[in-house]
Amino acid sequence: MPGLEVVLLDVNETLSDLEPLRARFAAVGAPEHLLDPWFASTLRDGFALAAGEAAAPFLEVGAAALRTLLAPLPGLTVPLEDAVQQVVAGLSTLDVHPDVPEGLRLLADGGLRVVPFSNGAAASAQQLLERAGLSELVERCLSVEDAGRWKPHARSYAYALGECGVEPEQAALLAVHPWDTDGARRSGLVSGWLDRRDVPYPDVFLPPDVTGPDLPAVARALLARQPQLP
Amino acid sequence: MPGLEVVLLDVNETLSDLEPLRARFAAVGAPEHLLDPWFASTLRDGFALAAGEAAAPFLEVGAAALRTLLAPLPGLTVPLEDAVQQVVAGLSTLDVHPDVPEGLRLLADGGLRVVPFSNGAAASAQQLLERAGLSELVERCLSVEDAGRWKPHARSYAYALGECGVEPEQAALLAVHPWDTDGARRSGLVSGWLDRRDVPYPDVFLPPDVTGPDLPAVARALLARQPQLP
Repeated sequence: MPGLEVVLLDVNETLSDLEPLRARFAAVGAPEHLLDPWFASTLRDGFALAAGEAAAPFLEVGAAALRTLLAPLPGLTVPLEDAVQQVVAGLSTLDVHPDVPEGLRLLADGGLRVVPFSNGAAASAQQLLERAGLSELVERCLSVEDAGRWKPHARSYAYALGECGVEPEQAALLAVHPWDTDGARRSGLVSGWLDRRDVPYPDVFLPPDVTGPDLPAVARALLARQPQLP
Repeated sequence: MPGLEVVLLDVNETLSDLEPLRARFAAVGAPEHLLDPWFASTLRDGFALAAGEAAAPFLEVGAAALRTLLAPLPGLTVPLEDAVQQVVAGLSTLDVHPDVPEGLRLLADGGLRVVPFSNGAAASAQQLLERAGLSELVERCLSVEDAGRWKPHARSYAYALGECGVEPEQAALLAVHPWDTDGARRSGLVSGWLDRRDVPYPDVFLPPDVTGPDLPAVARALLARQPQLP
């Protein structure tokens, strides 16, 4: 067993905390709980395109899904398109979850190459890490925009493996999203699930290889699987 | 131009009205607005499997997504699994939208073969139409469960065309869901979008061939495209 060389990290929700976006919904006169159907429907529509062998940029899919959610609301305090842009702009102001710095350091100190791999833009992931002062822990940021298919389409993982120059069994993908750990496993990668909210793992997806309540816990579980030097 | 022979109809939300499910969330102590992220995340997870060349039954994907949404709630009035089953059971009690009977009659009177084609079970679609007294207007109900891939994967539409014995250009797919009209068009079918909520069509998807505010309007627009007998 060759051991892991690369850890791919999902970005939206796995590294970044979306909760501050709720205030942006409130600021345009929309219910804060719309964050949840918005993010779910953005992924739904991106995955629909992937299932249909197509793709569009994350921000365009997200803006289109948001228009559909906000258009019927009676209480918007600004014109629809302004409301859409004000919420979407919040994506470039997010911070990482509090457990992320320690988790990234554990992975890097463990000798693994740390590569965020996002359904969003690579520049957005890079800026998130720079705002958090963590970019030196990361080799580079990758995006499905250069793969032609969103995760969890097999072509996305194949693209990331190719860019990193490793075989599937030399790479792990870590995510809070079961659809991502499932897709990674179907492509032969090791998978790790962050269960920050203490919820059941959906039994329709392939189970993750390692799991834990936050990134440090998953990092430790991953490193414990590494072959020991003699 | 040979003209249309078959109209495939999406079922969940296109024929059935999901709104009564909100009361089932309230009855187990959950916010009614969870209906929206639940349905979006059910589709998200089913599409993720399709993008990964896999599939699971709609009710299993829906129940797993619901567990994830309900598990963190502090105020459930029944045990988690009871809450999940009580909400999911509501899917088999739904009615059709008020505009559906007239729409189905227009399609059938126009000489088209009417075939509901669901991401759920064929029996569920059949029972929905029987409860509404509309099953005599329908040739048969089809499900992606027999295709091995959910819509909008190309294999799903190919399955339905094969079962109906028609070429793509002889079939239309009608849906309230832009991901379904997009997928149908990518597979060569005519597509019709029901815009019951008067929202913008997401510009990341291929536009529908016909559109209207309800099923009769879309049916009329579709029939108006049919070649006239000399």
